[in-house]
Amino acid sequence: MSEMSFEIQRSRTLGEVLDHLLPAYQNEFCKKLLEHCELPSLSHVVSGFAALEEVLFPGFRHDHPQGTPLETFVRRHLDEAYDILFEEIRKSIPFRWLGEYAVLQDVKPIEDIPGEAQRIVNALFKRLPALRELLKLDVQAAYNGDPAALSYAEVILSYPCMMAITTHRIAHELYRLDVPLIPRMMGEYAHSRTGIDIHPGASIGESFFIDHGTGVVIGETCRIGNRVKIYQGVTLGAKSFPLDERGNPIKNIKRHPTIEDDVIIYSGATILGGSTVIGKGSVIGGNLWITASVPPLTQVHQKKPEHEIKRNGSPAARRKA
Amino acid sequence: MSEMSFEIQRSRTLGEVLDHLLPAYQNEFCKKLLEHCELPSLSHVVSGFAALEEVLFPGFRHDHPQGTPLETFVRRHLDEAYDILFEEIRKSIPFRWLGEYAVLQDVKPIEDIPGEAQRIVNALFKRLPALRELLKLDVQAAYNGDPAALSYAEVILSYPCMMAITTHRIAHELYRLDVPLIPRMMGEYAHSRTGIDIHPGASIGESFFIDHGTGVVIGETCRIGNRVKIYQGVTLGAKSFPLDERGNPIKNIKRHPTIEDDVIIYSGATILGGSTVIGKGSVIGGNLWITASVPPLTQVHQKKPEHEIKRNGSPAARRKA
Amino acid sequence: MSEMSFEIQRSRTLGEVLDHLLPAYQNEFCKKLLEHCELPSLSHVVSGFAALEEVLFPGFRHDHPQGTPLETFVRRHLDEAYDILFEEIRKSIPFRWLGEYAVLQDVKPIEDIPGEAQRIVNALFKRLPALRELLKLDVQAAYNGDPAALSYAEVILSYPCMMAITTHRIAHELYRLDVPLIPRMMGEYAHSRTGIDIHPGASIGESFFIDHGTGVVIGETCRIGNRVKIYQGVTLGAKSFPLDERGNPIKNIKRHPTIEDDVIIYSGATILGGSTVIGKGSVIGGNLWITASVPPLTQVHQKKPEHEIKRNGSPAARRKA
Repeated sequence: MSEMSFEIQRSRTLGEVLDHLLPAYQNEFCKKLLEHCELPSLSHVVSGFAALEEVLFPGFRHDHPQGTPLETFVRRHLDEAYDILFEEIRKSIPFRWLGEYAVLQDVKPIEDIPGEAQRIVNALFKRLPALRELLKLDVQAAYNGDPAALSYAEVILSYPCMMAITTHRIAHELYRLDVPLIPRMMGEYAHSRTGIDIHPGASIGESFFIDHGTGVVIGETCRIGNRVKIYQGVTLGAKSFPLDERGNPIKNIKRHPTIEDDVIIYSGATILGGSTVIGKGSVIGGNLWITASVPPLTQVHQKKPEHEIKRNGSPAARRKA
Repeated sequence: MSEMSFEIQRSRTLGEVLDHLLPAYQNEFCKKLLEHCELPSLSHVVSGFAALEEVLFPGFRHDHPQGTPLETFVRRHLDEAYDILFEEIRKSIPFRWLGEYAVLQDVKPIEDIPGEAQRIVNALFKRLPALRELLKLDVQAAYNGDPAALSYAEVILSYPCMMAITTHRIAHELYRLDVPLIPRMMGEYAHSRTGIDIHPGASIGESFFIDHGTGVVIGETCRIGNRVKIYQGVTLGAKSFPLDERGNPIKNIKRHPTIEDDVIIYSGATILGGSTVIGKGSVIGGNLWITASVPPLTQVHQKKPEHEIKRNGSPAARRKA
Repeated sequence: MSEMSFEIQRSRTLGEVLDHLLPAYQNEFCKKLLEHCELPSLSHVVSGFAALEEVLFPGFRHDHPQGTPLETFVRRHLDEAYDILFEEIRKSIPFRWLGEYAVLQDVKPIEDIPGEAQRIVNALFKRLPALRELLKLDVQAAYNGDPAALSYAEVILSYPCMMAITTHRIAHELYRLDVPLIPRMMGEYAHSRTGIDIHPGASIGESFFIDHGTGVVIGETCRIGNRVKIYQGVTLGAKSFPLDERGNPIKNIKRHPTIEDDVIIYSGATILGGSTVIGKGSVIGGNLWITASVPPLTQVHQKKPEHEIKRNGSPAARRKA
């Protein structure tokens, strides 16, 4: 193949692709988006979150500032997080009412968007000291809940639940402050890193521990009490959901369960439904499928399943295993 | 420990390790690979894919090009993707017949490898406009399928299924063009980021939605129709597979199920076998284990399992829960 | 909003947050940690591991050194890995006894910490040739165990089990050398990338293959024999664990099962308990929940569950499916 022929083919192919793509963009959100508004950037959202992590757990994350006075270190990361998050929140606010890119919301556009963005960042930042106290309880819950944990440092440096719950507690604040897009971007970033999928709308109490975590799903309208412990593969999800007259799911209904204080849910259990309540102090066994409420102080386990046992090609026997 | 002693020990250890490793490389693929051929690079494959994502969803991914005219932006990323993918595909082609590094294939080496690589890239790029239309339907399917979704923008920016299906639709084109290595590298990169493991061989129809997604496995020879919806933890897998005379699994057999149009499969369900067909419009309940076909318009659910309930240390009672 | 007002509010908010955070750090591990000791850095640990991967699979990872002689290439990465891991291990060693940041261990502080760190790095490096032979068997096991695998190169370049087992075999050496923090950081990094969660304490024999892998959990005190094959979603975990007099879990007990040679465990199975032994050559069916030992050469499967089938709104029928 000659260099010439390569260039000719390349240029012909790219021209043909562009000829098809460019008109297709015209009547779509993408075209308008690029010319008239800005999208929050995932990499900036992640940097802003990383700077907050340095404030919440100084020295445990991306830098190691030995010798730097703590105040200097924390102030620098607070500054950085403030400016990044202000920018990304400012970009996201119009998605409250931009019906062409979002569902048309019944919301009046705000005139002073930067002012609203700053109001939100201020509100988030004023919550940081309280969030930090909550996260310390989460560290203790993981240490106390896992016989393999050897130190708080190990929990903070390596446990995926710490990334998931730290992200969630920040994303939940932004969700409550009615920030579009960014809470979900944060939540899905943590999901990508940990396999733990917590919707930013979920409300989660103190001393929360998820062991291992891969495959955990916690839906938007869950309410979870204090000292709850969950294992890998647990779903707190929705049953089927009602549709509106156009056949679309109706948004903003409590679709996910309530888990009261001191509940333990073992691996692979699925608990569904907005009116399902797991009562205080109850224990839900592994792999269970629960669609109705469980009273307080109750232990629910699988009935011992019958297994089929075959040995060495001999005829099948059955026994409880 | 003195500096001197550190250096002496370091040098002695490294020397000893090298003395063992170097001869071990000799009779292996690694040595030959390094000297005689090139391997595609994961980081380049990922960059090429990222450039294509910018073309498919301009502004939603790694850059934010406000002010740049759309045509300039798209043309730049098309150029970039073309050159990167050409190079990596060029490196991968010899793995069609390189028996020492791959299984010996019954395939004649191609003389004009760059020409073949360009033919493939051209064919992929000409499919981009059609792939983009498919992906728009996937965005709508996610928006319509999840009551928590608030806008198309949210779906594109944060839903893991979008990364998984975008990657899959591109990787599947390369798979059909008989490109070795790269389709699987792309698929496993998306798996790593989303927990959704789709083999590039799987054939997937329009308007496909995977909610949450962690733990989903879709095997190489699956055929999936239009408007199918799948939840987290669903496996579309193989039963046991036949072995050849040397005890190795026989490749290239339909081992995975067929899912017809408009099927919903709830979380944790496992559907196995190459002759298993889930008929049009059927619903498979959560956690089911299905190894035989299900006729159209059928709803299959778990028989209500018996749970064992214990309260406050009182003797165990049984009830349906 | 004026620029002035933005700056005033920003400065007031950050001042207020700092006023709350700084005293809160005082009586905590964070403050002391920053001033008196160093934490290993995740990004350095990851770089050190990446350099070792280049030695174990030259050319398959982050660089592509075509034209570089193999010896030069390997020597360079060995050098790099040695220096990085020495530093990070040196920082981690005090966590053996640092009671304020870790649980107070009954361990005497070591005086020559760099000497101990070098002893450990030397011991790890001397194991590299043997680890490499083990990993080649793991590549073969994946190739032989998966009908979709087309070449060893494909396995090394794309299979998540390769990243998980490579990380584990290195982390396990460091675990046995009594290195705090770093083995778990490595293991959780691989978990984040693959969805496969293997505690570095687990002991795993030759020719180990995990297919797909998302959701696999292998606990600290597992013992796994040779030629074992595991599918996605398998848990090898603990039953409930005894508490000490303060109500904390007692550490250092065998809590996880033993899996003998030539066992296959299908997707979603859960096997629990420190005295549970799955005998040589046995097969554990998908989704099973096993809490007692299974003798050798036994096949355990689900009893065919009863499903409820409904068609087209007709009254429910039951059948075995």
